[in-house]
This record gives sequence, structure tokens and C-alpha cells, in this order.
Amino acid sequence: MCGIFAIENNVDSATLAFAGLITLQHRGEESAGITANGDGNTYNTHKAMGLVSQIFKEKVLNNLSGKVAIGHVRYSTHSESSLLNAQPFVYNCIHGNIAVAHNGNITNFEKIKNRLAKSGSIFNHTSDTEIVAHLIAENTGKTTGQIIKKSVQSLEGAFSLVFIHGNKLIGVRDSFGFRPLALGKIDNSYILASETSAIDAIGGKFIRDIKPGEIIVIENGKITESLQFTKKVKEKLCIFEQVYFSRPDSILCGRNIKDARVDMGRYLAQQMKHIKADVVVPVPDTGLFSAQGFSQYSGIDLQIGFIRNHYVGRSFIKPSQKMREITAKLKLFPIKDVINGKRIVLIDDSLVRGTTAQKIVSTLRNAGAKEIHLALSSPAVISPCFYGIDTPIKSKLIAAVKSVEEIKEFLNVDSLTFLDINNMKKACGNGKPNNFCCACFDGKYPSKIDKNKLNA
Amino acid sequence: MCGIFAIENNVDSATLAFAGLITLQHRGEESAGITANGDGNTYNTHKAMGLVSQIFKEKVLNNLSGKVAIGHVRYSTHSESSLLNAQPFVYNCIHGNIAVAHNGNITNFEKIKNRLAKSGSIFNHTSDTEIVAHLIAENTGKTTGQIIKKSVQSLEGAFSLVFIHGNKLIGVRDSFGFRPLALGKIDNSYILASETSAIDAIGGKFIRDIKPGEIIVIENGKITESLQFTKKVKEKLCIFEQVYFSRPDSILCGRNIKDARVDMGRYLAQQMKHIKADVVVPVPDTGLFSAQGFSQYSGIDLQIGFIRNHYVGRSFIKPSQKMREITAKLKLFPIKDVINGKRIVLIDDSLVRGTTAQKIVSTLRNAGAKEIHLALSSPAVISPCFYGIDTPIKSKLIAAVKSVEEIKEFLNVDSLTFLDINNMKKACGNGKPNNFCCACFDGKYPSKIDKNKLNA
Amino acid sequence: MCGIFAIENNVDSATLAFAGLITLQHRGEESAGITANGDGNTYNTHKAMGLVSQIFKEKVLNNLSGKVAIGHVRYSTHSESSLLNAQPFVYNCIHGNIAVAHNGNITNFEKIKNRLAKSGSIFNHTSDTEIVAHLIAENTGKTTGQIIKKSVQSLEGAFSLVFIHGNKLIGVRDSFGFRPLALGKIDNSYILASETSAIDAIGGKFIRDIKPGEIIVIENGKITESLQFTKKVKEKLCIFEQVYFSRPDSILCGRNIKDARVDMGRYLAQQMKHIKADVVVPVPDTGLFSAQGFSQYSGIDLQIGFIRNHYVGRSFIKPSQKMREITAKLKLFPIKDVINGKRIVLIDDSLVRGTTAQKIVSTLRNAGAKEIHLALSSPAVISPCFYGIDTPIKSKLIAAVKSVEEIKEFLNVDSLTFLDINNMKKACGNGKPNNFCCACFDGKYPSKIDKNKLNA
Amino acid sequence: MCGIFAIENNVDSATLAFAGLITLQHRGEESAGITANGDGNTYNTHKAMGLVSQIFKEKVLNNLSGKVAIGHVRYSTHSESSLLNAQPFVYNCIHGNIAVAHNGNITNFEKIKNRLAKSGSIFNHTSDTEIVAHLIAENTGKTTGQIIKKSVQSLEGAFSLVFIHGNKLIGVRDSFGFRPLALGKIDNSYILASETSAIDAIGGKFIRDIKPGEIIVIENGKITESLQFTKKVKEKLCIFEQVYFSRPDSILCGRNIKDARVDMGRYLAQQMKHIKADVVVPVPDTGLFSAQGFSQYSGIDLQIGFIRNHYVGRSFIKPSQKMREITAKLKLFPIKDVINGKRIVLIDDSLVRGTTAQKIVSTLRNAGAKEIHLALSSPAVISPCFYGIDTPIKSKLIAAVKSVEEIKEFLNVDSLTFLDINNMKKACGNGKPNNFCCACFDGKYPSKIDKNKLNA
Repeated sequence: MCGIFAIENNVDSATLAFAGLITLQHRGEESAGITANGDGNTYNTHKAMGLVSQIFKEKVLNNLSGKVAIGHVRYSTHSESSLLNAQPFVYNCIHGNIAVAHNGNITNFEKIKNRLAKSGSIFNHTSDTEIVAHLIAENTGKTTGQIIKKSVQSLEGAFSLVFIHGNKLIGVRDSFGFRPLALGKIDNSYILASETSAIDAIGGKFIRDIKPGEIIVIENGKITESLQFTKKVKEKLCIFEQVYFSRPDSILCGRNIKDARVDMGRYLAQQMKHIKADVVVPVPDTGLFSAQGFSQYSGIDLQIGFIRNHYVGRSFIKPSQKMREITAKLKLFPIKDVINGKRIVLIDDSLVRGTTAQKIVSTLRNAGAKEIHLALSSPAVISPCFYGIDTPIKSKLIAAVKSVEEIKEFLNVDSLTFLDINNMKKACGNGKPNNFCCACFDGKYPSKIDKNKLNA
Repeated sequence: MCGIFAIENNVDSATLAFAGLITLQHRGEESAGITANGDGNTYNTHKAMGLVSQIFKEKVLNNLSGKVAIGHVRYSTHSESSLLNAQPFVYNCIHGNIAVAHNGNITNFEKIKNRLAKSGSIFNHTSDTEIVAHLIAENTGKTTGQIIKKSVQSLEGAFSLVFIHGNKLIGVRDSFGFRPLALGKIDNSYILASETSAIDAIGGKFIRDIKPGEIIVIENGKITESLQFTKKVKEKLCIFEQVYFSRPDSILCGRNIKDARVDMGRYLAQQMKHIKADVVVPVPDTGLFSAQGFSQYSGIDLQIGFIRNHYVGRSFIKPSQKMREITAKLKLFPIKDVINGKRIVLIDDSLVRGTTAQKIVSTLRNAGAKEIHLALSSPAVISPCFYGIDTPIKSKLIAAVKSVEEIKEFLNVDSLTFLDINNMKKACGNGKPNNFCCACFDGKYPSKIDKNKLNA
Repeated sequence: MCGIFAIENNVDSATLAFAGLITLQHRGEESAGITANGDGNTYNTHKAMGLVSQIFKEKVLNNLSGKVAIGHVRYSTHSESSLLNAQPFVYNCIHGNIAVAHNGNITNFEKIKNRLAKSGSIFNHTSDTEIVAHLIAENTGKTTGQIIKKSVQSLEGAFSLVFIHGNKLIGVRDSFGFRPLALGKIDNSYILASETSAIDAIGGKFIRDIKPGEIIVIENGKITESLQFTKKVKEKLCIFEQVYFSRPDSILCGRNIKDARVDMGRYLAQQMKHIKADVVVPVPDTGLFSAQGFSQYSGIDLQIGFIRNHYVGRSFIKPSQKMREITAKLKLFPIKDVINGKRIVLIDDSLVRGTTAQKIVSTLRNAGAKEIHLALSSPAVISPCFYGIDTPIKSKLIAAVKSVEEIKEFLNVDSLTFLDINNMKKACGNGKPNNFCCACFDGKYPSKIDKNKLNA
Repeated sequence: MCGIFAIENNVDSATLAFAGLITLQHRGEESAGITANGDGNTYNTHKAMGLVSQIFKEKVLNNLSGKVAIGHVRYSTHSESSLLNAQPFVYNCIHGNIAVAHNGNITNFEKIKNRLAKSGSIFNHTSDTEIVAHLIAENTGKTTGQIIKKSVQSLEGAFSLVFIHGNKLIGVRDSFGFRPLALGKIDNSYILASETSAIDAIGGKFIRDIKPGEIIVIENGKITESLQFTKKVKEKLCIFEQVYFSRPDSILCGRNIKDARVDMGRYLAQQMKHIKADVVVPVPDTGLFSAQGFSQYSGIDLQIGFIRNHYVGRSFIKPSQKMREITAKLKLFPIKDVINGKRIVLIDDSLVRGTTAQKIVSTLRNAGAKEIHLALSSPAVISPCFYGIDTPIKSKLIAAVKSVEEIKEFLNVDSLTFLDINNMKKACGNGKPNNFCCACFDGKYPSKIDKNKLNA
């Protein structure tokens, strides 16, 4: 997962990108970067490993002059080459300098890369984003929009992209619209952002989502081009955005994420009518709104059962097993008298490997929980994601390899309820329940997926 | 404010102190330090500016060998000399090496310092803690407890102290017990900590509070001395611990802080029966439990109305005004549809300068709030603290200089309700409502205070 | 200027490259990097701004596993994008991954880049080195040597290159051999280095120089290919290597640099027979050996007249004018009684802008020098270098814009003597005085130079 | 060893102290610090581990405002508590705040410390400097000079001290004058420095040495007090200053260090008349001037035989044995053709443990030296120093435990000549050969030394 934020026609572009990225930090905590430009060919870039607030001190931002800026936060597995792959990238080519930031996963990346390599291309990064630059360099056209159109037509998979080209800002979204990309405005400056909350954060107004298959070119506060790069468009927004990734104050499909989550909780409560419990306890922080919905529907009291310690950071130096265990325990701390002797409905967003849930259940048992009814505001994850979410391979997905009974035993819970897939779609859909990619829950991939990868 | 954590008779003493300090981090985010010893005269210390998790990497902890460790987190105003004043301190004297960490404020510090200076003493730190070391160095006695007893008798004000002397761990609490100090145990190791949650965090059991005026000496897993250094003992625990400082899962006066806060909310609801409102919104994170109590009593729906961005850090390099404003807005973000058009009961813990509350109210107004009824789970702060809490001088306390009507106007709220002082005492007191220092609320200081300071 | 060091077939390749780069540090103090490989496609790279000894701590070197390593030190003007341009570079292409490090300047860089851009190539760096990778990616061949041969044929200008390709180490030198590249061996490992002293430093034996126009491919301790990529070969080694750049213990053209410099001093003394002086004073450290030669021939006493403070470092944060002046004075410190009242022959290596010489002369005057006879162990620099040395444009070369009389006045010296160009060639040439590029002294460029650049 | 630099009545005091410390860096490379004051009680201090140029960036210096500044560079063995012991120290006492920096070793430190501890004093540092502050705090007097006088009378051993007291600068030198302390002036500002070259470095004029047993108090550009704290004065300057420590451009006993060293070389040549050799080779950098003297007297040619690599730094992270060996070899590099087949007189300053000399001789043998005649410009070191020089205990001094024959064998040299002690005194003495402490060479300690320490 990644987050992108872009703004144009603004002398404070880098500082506003900084504010936007702070708001999108939850989408990627590994590295962050900002590139700014706007008056010709000089692109100023700063990127580093770590959190946005640590990387972008005021002095650094002041050096990132330019009226157009794009920013990126990145989540990835640890690797020594990580800084090399931190975005945005800036490339020079026949069209001049171009900066790019990308959220998503290009599924036919290797095929295109092989084709390019055969024709003599070189590659600096292991990232799939670099091939987009190669394709742009290969293509010509009358306008920036035309060049981009030709370049992205061969791409398959998930891609929400932003580019700087001179003082133009360009936004692109793949034909399924897997990853979100919202258009906003503040004064005379257009904004592109992964989530609407980032537009709000800088005081801007949300206008609309970039449409699946759309290319939008903005220059000096005006939309100069808006075109579809393909006719085969079929909205399939990743439903995990509502379930887990997006901030509760962001709007997707015309709906506040918070409201979608409250509804998920209501549906869960409906599914679990037969369960008798004393208290509804959310796993912080994502379970909170679903727990509210559950409590409202069921009438069972919602209680804060855990203190989350925000001071326990992510470590980039691999800690020892002993240290990992010590710090893991400090993150989530039970409030004993909320739990002791109680029949608990525990609300979490999803069940992937099951290892975290197992630890949380064990914490509750140690704190004296009498019964634990685990309720997940999503269906069982049974299939990997190829569109940008870091789900593990099938064999590590607990619901792909164990039966419900086996999972209950593994987790040591008294009951286990997954949100019904249709309920999830209804909660998120705002009347359009079929506009989602639910491949990780139902195995139905909107685009072609290599079988070897699927069964890896 | 500060936090202290100590453990003895444990080969992992520094690592456990680290875990304890992580849990107490909210008590002081400026600097942190750990000193370990246990086999003679070699004391290992590491201290630095910043957060516990940034300062104590595994490699650092491994160098802090020793079976007794004391740790300290410190809150303070910025100053270049801050690292010099970071605790623990280690002093050498006639009794050998002694390490000390301190939570509180010694009110007759200058008088004692002047006396010591006249007799030829030198001072390294501007901290009041150093005079404790001087007094210990001056006194003799048959046992460590006897020496400490003679040394602390002349101290006035607030002091919860922990010492390492060889492989002894010593705990001391002033005769009013202004600041908390809890005794716990894990396996064969005793623990001393500012809050019980830190004892829980490492898997220990809370035994009892150190009593006002008590000195406790622990060695090799045994309490070897427990003595009272004065007969004039009168419990006056700082009630701000329950109102604001302590973690909700800590226990004080035999009561969970969370429960005290829920009761504060109930009493507030009782005081505000006449107010008609649509929704109760807590200021994160301290207002949450009071809001629960308010909602339970009043039947008005509790809604999460703000997203708090935990990625916005505290900056040690002074940012520009522009940057401060940008980041301030990113910290607390309103969820518009919770607020828009609503009559809101806004619950916060206390009102000190009023500037933060003013900003929050303004945020709510911008998000469309129809009415805002500010409810504070404490009385009006009208007098400065001399016992360790960083309240400003009288002239900067809004409730000391403005009438309720003027404050309402300043904050732009429709109504303003402070928790009645007796209700606060009842909520916190567990049947002993008079065992608290409420000087900042009622101006009644348990110990003598210099008039010049009071009216500064 | 840059320095390169490479070694293969050695499990300690990165550590030995580190030792080699320490020895070559004088060739570039801005950034340093090492890439290691040797078992397939995984290349480990570490590069940073700063000095070799600061960048490569033991822990870092241990992570650079691989049996083939290439290292690079770089001198360049300050720029924010400097780290991005630090070498070695690693590229992926049809031939797999290739690492490259480069010393020199490709003069037809822009022409080739334009051709590549037109055919759809993208560029990551502003460095001329990247086009070498592009050319390799474009070409095919039966062997690595054949591919490289086709790739470098179109390059003009100065290039000593080393590559890693799998577990092969490749060395290339341009057809004029502008920049040096020596072949050495230690045990079963071949070494390529900018100077022979770096081979000595790790205990290796110097074998021979890589020939102008030669490509050498080494694998597992064996030279598998040695081919000429062009028939138009004409040795034109940059004579500034002997004058200034190379370490005195390095060997070039079969001659110790030290001996060449001693001879330069002898010739200078011969040219200056008519000058009466009391003492010969070298500017540290490069003037030392020429001063020895001068003293030996003339019989005038050599005296150390300056203390050089090696603790005065280069600053990467731009200091204020005041600070620059303070530190400049601390670098070179006169020993007064060597200078006071004396007629001095001051020996320096070359005169470029004249500003440094002016300061040194002023220092001597302040220390009481009676007469100052400046002797330079090279002719007047009158033309810029396009082959990798950072000489300024013509208008900033003092000898290009001022007459000898004017320079004397500017510098405030009693006499000014440049080493005769033929004497310089004889001193360096070891019997082959015409094998040098002396373009900066005589304006005769061995390869075609763009007139616009020449007259910039 | 340490270096101190102080300046008063100057708005740029900290920057000038920085320049002074850069010049004195050779006296201590471990830590550095500057304290500035001048308008009351606020002392600004910055100190850190590392080199002066790394620690004091312009921004740091700008924060050290004040008209009086004292600076200190420190050499010491590695220890975790090193930063704690970095100087200057600032203490508060009955006289207000006092800053102190110290060069030397107080030999009755423990006796005084025990007395102070018994009377109730506490100690922050393991340094002997702290007791000076204690003594000042104990004493009273009409003037600052009188207070200092009473305070330092009980001190034994070596101490050159500088203090800041308000806007007064105070200098003190022990009654033997073991360590140097020079007085200088620039404009209206007095300077105190360990070496005259530091006074020169900032453009100041050397006035005179502070006399043994003298206290000097300076305020606002005027010497307000100059008094002797004892009548028992007997000049015994550490002769190692001339032999090794001081910069060659510093003046001691009215003589340029360089000239003393040249004379040492002459005397050595006189002692070694019978030796036939081809070349005189100095060990860089301290052997250079003695080698000049030797060459002048003997007529044997002086040749630079080693290249010293100034980029090989001192490491604070303990390197592995393998790494130590690699970097050791890079520091000093032989120029083969100077050495190969030659009979060499190798000039070094002193022989302490013998391990470094052994390595250098081995390097020369490997480079083909035919004969090696080691000449040391000092006598054999046979006794430890208690006055501030880091010589090892007797059992590790090679000349204390081995005969000349055994040393020759250990070092693998053809002959070994120590400078005769009387020759050394004559070279350094400027007509006063008895004004030196030569205890490390002759075992005659000017002050009382504890026998246990002597035979440790």
C-alpha cells in the first residue's frame, strides 16, 4: 500500500504536500518523498526512510521550491535497497524531466520489462513504476495527455499515478479504479490525493474521484485535458479501503468510511443475534466504528477494553526475539475490569494470518474474559491480492487452509463470525454493491492473473 | 511531570526498566534515562533527549548491565542545558556511588541550596534533585534507610524518589504523598513505579502504594527496611493524576483511573441535566471515559468526533509560526457528519490557558456544530502548582483572570460547565475524598508556599 | 577527478576495496561508494557523501558480501543531487545486472544522450556514466568483452572504467589513456586501480598499466579476454597526474611520481640559476619533492616553512564569509624564523586561479619574508580541461588573462618562474616525452573539442 | 594530555576559542568543549566526543554567546563516561557560577577527595578537576585572586588552569610549571593558551608565559591581579613538550620548538659519527626537524621515506583485529626506492612501548632497507609520568625492562641511539638546561610521588 498527494499552482506546494502526506501516513510508514517543480526543468526531490514528520523538517521543505509538488508514502517489506525504491522518481527523457509517484501494482510488469530490455532499455529500480517512465519515453503525441494515454494503455493491474511534467500535474487511474484517487481544490490550486481526508487536511474541497480509465492534465489552476485511455472500464474499487486502509473521515463512493464501518457493525450484530454477551470491545483503532454499530444494533454496551500505546514504534533495526516479545506486549494493554468475568464480543476488521488475533485473545483470556466472541467486519480472506495490498500467499492465509472450527480452536474463541460478503458490499456500496474488487474474499479477480502466482 | 520506574534483583533490569518507561512515556516526553548497577560500584547510565523507544535501542540496553535499574522520563521546558538535567543522576560521596531519580518539586530547594553553598558545596545541575544527594552525603547512619531518613527530613514539597546504592533499591515518598509511587513484584524482583500500569506492563503484580513519609529499602528480592521519616503525615495525592496524567488502566487510591473518569462524566451529566444536546463528543484521548460516563447518565449518544493523528510529533527544533499552524491543524481532525448541524456536549479534562480549547471549538464551528456545550471533568484551574505540574503562573490561568461569562465568550461556546470540586473528589476518592491536593482548583496548599512565588 | 579501485576472486573484496579507496582518497573527497557481487545477480552497494573512513564502518563492509568489488571516490562541485550521482551505479538490462564506476569525462556525452533519448531511453542521473550503461544494453555479442567493445567504440574523451558483470571484473581505458588504470595482483585476485600505490597498499603487486584502447575481462583469478576496441590508439596520459594528482609513491610511465617531481625541481633550479636566495620553502604537501630537487641542484637550503593543520576539514554546510576566512588561515601556518628576513624560493605545483598563491605569499610577507621567488613545477595553465580535471573556464585562469608581469604584481612576488613545458615532459616522460596530454598548458587537445565549450 | 585556550573581552570569544582549539587539536583528539560567558551568570557550553571541526559548526558557535570563553581538547582512554568528563566544567557555588578547564594531573587528588567526601561533599565526575571547584567553593577572600590563591595552595602535581568567573578570566599554573600556559593579546583581549602557536593562529601576540605558581586575573581587557600562590617555586617544565607534544611553530622557554628539534638532531648526529649511512629518514611528522638537524650535521642526505595518509582516522567504535591491521598499514606508507638497498638512519622522537617502532622497522625491511640505525631524539623512557602524560606503567616501558641489546633485537635494528639527556636539555634549554622535568627519562620526580603508584 502507498499513499499519494499532489498539488499544483501553489508556491507552498511542498509544504502542503507535507501536510497531505502526514494525513496519509497510515497508508505507508516505510519511506516518504516529495518532488517539486513548476518553472522549467529543475526538479527538487527529498526522500528518505522513516516517517513524514521525521523526514521533512522545515529547512528541507524550504529547499523544495516549486509550484507543483507530488508526494508519496510507501509501505514495503524491509530491504537494503529500499531507499533506492522510495518515490517519487524523476526521469529525464525526450520529453524533458518527468516525476512520477504510484499507488498500486502493475500485474504485467515483467512482460513489459522483458520487452523493453530486449530493445535495449536499462533499469535502475526493482519497482514496477519505472516501466511507466520507459513507456512515456517511447511514445509521442500532440499533448501531454495524448503521450500518457498511449503509454498507459498496455498496463494491466492497479495504478493510481501522479506525474509532474514542467508545470503540469497529471493524474491517472487504471480502468478498474482499484486504488482511489480523489480530485480537490484549494483557492486556485488543484489537488490529487489517495484519500479525501488529505484534501480536507489542508483546507481544500473534495470535487470528485478521478474516474477509472481517466487521465487528467492540470496546468496553472486549470484542467486542460481530461480523457479516457480505454473504453473497457469497469469500476472495481478495492473494498479493503473501507474495511481497513482508509481513514474513517475519508469519503469513498460518496460515503464516509466511518458510516460504512458503523453499518458493518450493525450487520454483524444482526448476524450474531443469538450471541449473549456483556460487552462489545473493539480492537483499537480500526474496530471502533464497527463496534459502535454493533453496540447500537444489539444494545450491548460498548467499552474501551484496550489502551493502545502509540509510543511503541516500528523498528528498522531487526530486534531480537526477546525484544520483539517485550515490545509486542506494550502495544495493546487490557483494562482488566472491563474484561474480567465478562462475555465479550471482540470486534476486529479482518482475519489474515490469525497470529495477531491469537495474541489479542490470549491477552483477554489472561485478563479474565469469560467468553470471547470474535466478530470480523469483513469475510474470511481466502485469496492473495495482486493489486497493491500486502496479503501473504494462500498457504499463509488462515481461512484458506483451516475450517472455521479449526480457526476457532487456533484462536481459542467461543465463537467466530465473519461479516457476510453481501452485507459488506451493502455497507460500503452506497447503492452500488457491485462496484468493488472483493478478490481476496471471493477469489474473483477482475483482471487476468498468472496461475503460477495465484497458487504460489 | 516525570515518571519513574525501578526494579531490582533481575539480570534484565535495564530492559524491564525500558518496558516500564515506555508505559510511563506520557508522563514526560522530553528526555529519558536508565541507570543500572548491582555488583559494586560500577554504575552504567544512558540518557538522552527524545522518546524512550528512540533512545534505548537493544544494543544500548545490552550495555546497561546490572541487577538493579532505575529509569526516568522527564517533561520540561526546552533549554540547551536539558541533557545535563536529564535523570537519573549518579553521585559519588562518602557512602560510595548513589544513583537517584525524582518525580516532584522540592519547595524549599533554594533555602537548602543556600545553606549548602554557604558551607562550601558545589552544584552541577539546576535541578532540585541534586540537593538530595548533598544531604545524603552529609549524613551518616547505621543503615542505608537511616541515612536516607536523616537526609530527607528537611525536604519540603513533593518528592517521590528512587535510589540505587550498591545492590540496594530505595524508594521514598514525601509526607503528603503528592506524587504516586507504587510497589510491585515480579518473580523475586521488587518494582517501584509512578503508575501501576507500568508494573502490569512487565507482567508484575501491584502490591501496595508506598505510604506518605515512607522509606523502603530493598535488597536481593527482600524488603530489608521500611520506616517513616516523619510523624507529620497527611495524605494529599495530586488529584490531577486522576483528571489527566495517569493512564486509564492505572490504579490510584484503590480505584481504576478509568472508573474515576467515568464517574466524573456521570457527575457532569448530573450538573448539566438542563442542557439539550444531540451528541457527546470527547476530546481525544483523555476525554473518552468521562464522555462514556456522561453518555451513560444522560442517554445522549457518544460519538467519536475527532480523528487524532498520532504521526504529528513534537518538534525540538523551533518551527516557524506558519509551520506550527499547519501541523497544529493536522493533529485533531473533525469528522464532519458527526458534528454538522448538531448540538454538541464537548468533554475535555481541564481548562488551563484556554488556547487549546479555543482552537478545538473553532474546529467544531467550522465543521458545522450548531451548539457547543463545553464540559470539563475538573473545576476551574485558578492557582499554580508547586508540586511538580507545569501549570503557568496565575496571570496566564484563564479562570483566574476571567469570569465564566468572559471565558464563554473567549472560547465561543454556548455553555461552560466545570465539574464541581466535591463531585471530583467523590469520583476519585473511593470513600476518602479529603486525601487529595486540589490546590490548583481551590488554592489550599498543604505545605507552606512562598508568597512571592504564589503571586508571580 | 575521481579514483577507482576494483578487485575480484576474493571473499574480502569490499574490505580490500575500502583499503584501496582510503589510499585513493586524495583523488576525490566528496562521495565514496563500493558495490560487491560475485555469485549471481545480487549486487550489494553502499555509497554516501563524505570520506571513505567515515562512510565504511566495519558493519557496513560486512554487509557488502561478494567476491568481486568495485569502489569509487568522487570529487565534484557541491549540489543537492550529489548522492544520486555517487558511484558505482548498478543497472539491470538484457545482460542482467551490471555495476559501473568511471574516472574521466566523456566529451560527446550530450550527442549520444540525445540520440538515446530520441529512441526512447530514460535517464536517472545527470552523470555521463549512465550512457555507458545504455550503450551496453543496446549491444549484443558472444562474450562480455565483445559487448563492451561495441558499446565503448562510440565514446569520445576520457574514460577509465571498471564493471562488474556477474563474477566478471572488466576494465576499460580510452584510446588516449587520458586517465591512468593499473593492473595488479594479490594471491589469486586481480586488481584494477587508478594508482599503483593503492595496489601496494593492500599488499598486491603492480603488473602493468591497462593500455589505451584496451578492454580486459577477468574471471575467477584469470584474464579471460584482452582486446583493443579501436585501432586509433595514441597514448596521451594527463600530465597533471605527475604534477599534482597522483600520490608520490605511485608509478606512472614506469617512473615513481616522487622522482618525476624531484626532477621538476631540478629543472626549475636550472631555469632560475640567476636567482639569489637563502632558503627553498615548499607549499605543503605537493611542493615537497620539487623543493628537494631544487635544493639539491641549487645548493640552497630546503626548510619546512609551513605547518599544515590536517584537522581543518572541508565543510559541506556552506560557512559564512567570516568563518571561511578564519578557517582558511588555520590550514597553513608559517614558521616565522624560517621566513623572517629571508630571500625565499617558494615551490608550488601549479598556478590556476592564483587566489591561493596570493594568500600564501601574503602570509609569507606578514611573517617577514624579504624576497619571494615563486617557482611552479608546471607551465602556466592557459586552457581548460575536458578530460576530467576541474579546471575553471579560460576567463578564470590567471595565466590566460594576465601577463607574467601582471601576475607578479597580483601575487606580490619578486619573481615568477614556470617550469618549461619541455622540462616538465622530460621529468615525467621516462624517455617518452610525447606520450602526454598537456592541453591545459599548451591548448593542444588530442581529441575534438566543441569550440563553444572551449571559449566559454 | 590536553590543550586549553581562553580569551576575554571579545564578542567573538567562542569563535576565536574554536580557532585556538583547532590549532591545539594535536594535544587531544578525544573530546572538545567551549564555555562562554561575560555578562552575568549565564554560561553557554557545548562539548562532545570527536574533533573540534566536527563538533563546532557555525550554528553551534553562534549559540555560544559571551565575551569570555574557555576551550578544552582532551586526550583520554576510551570510556563510556567520557562525555561526562569532557571539559570545561561549570559549577555553581557560594561565589556564583564558575567554569574551569584543566591541563595536567593533580597528584594528591585522592587525599583531597577523601577529605572532602568525609566532610559531606558529592562528586559528579571521576576527573581530578572537580576538586578544584570544591576547594574554591570552600574558600572566601576579598578578590577572585585571593579566593583562588587559598584554593590551589593545597594542590600538588601538574595543573595549568583557566577559569571564567562572571566576566573575569583567570589563569593559574602550578609551582613547577609542569604544563605550559602562555599569555597573549589581540586588540583589547587577553588570551591564555597551552601553546603560543594558538595565539598566533588567531592573529594575537605572545606576551609571556604564566609563571610557575602564578595566578592572573583579567577583566575587560585589563590584568587586575597577578599574584604568586606559593613561595616554593622551581621551574620544571615537562621536556616532552619539546620532544613530542608541542607544535614545531610554538615557542617554549624563549625558543622555537622547531629549533630545539633541529638541535636534537644535530646532537644525535654528533653521537652517531661512527655510523655510515646513505640516507636520513624521519618518521612523520614529529621526526622531521630532528632529521633536518641530523642531515645538516652529518651531511647525509635527508629523504622523505614515508607517505602518511591523513585520511586514516581514529575509530571510536572498537574495530576487529583484522580491521585494525588493515588500517594500521594504510597510515604510513614506504616509498620503496628511497629505502630499497639503503643504509638508513631512521629518526623518531621517542621510544615508549616499542611496538610502533617495531612495525615501522618491519615496513622498512619489507621495502628493502639494508641497514636500519634507529635514532631517537630523546633518552630512553624508563619511568611513568604522573604529571599529565599518558605513559604506561613501568613494566610496559621497553627501556625499563630490556637492555639496549634486547631492544635492538626486539626492534630488529642494526643500531639504536638515544639522545644523551644532557644534549636534550641543552637543545631545549636556551641556556637554562635545569628548568625541565625529565622524570620519565631519569626518574627524578620534582614532587612527592606515592611509591605504590611508582612501582605499579
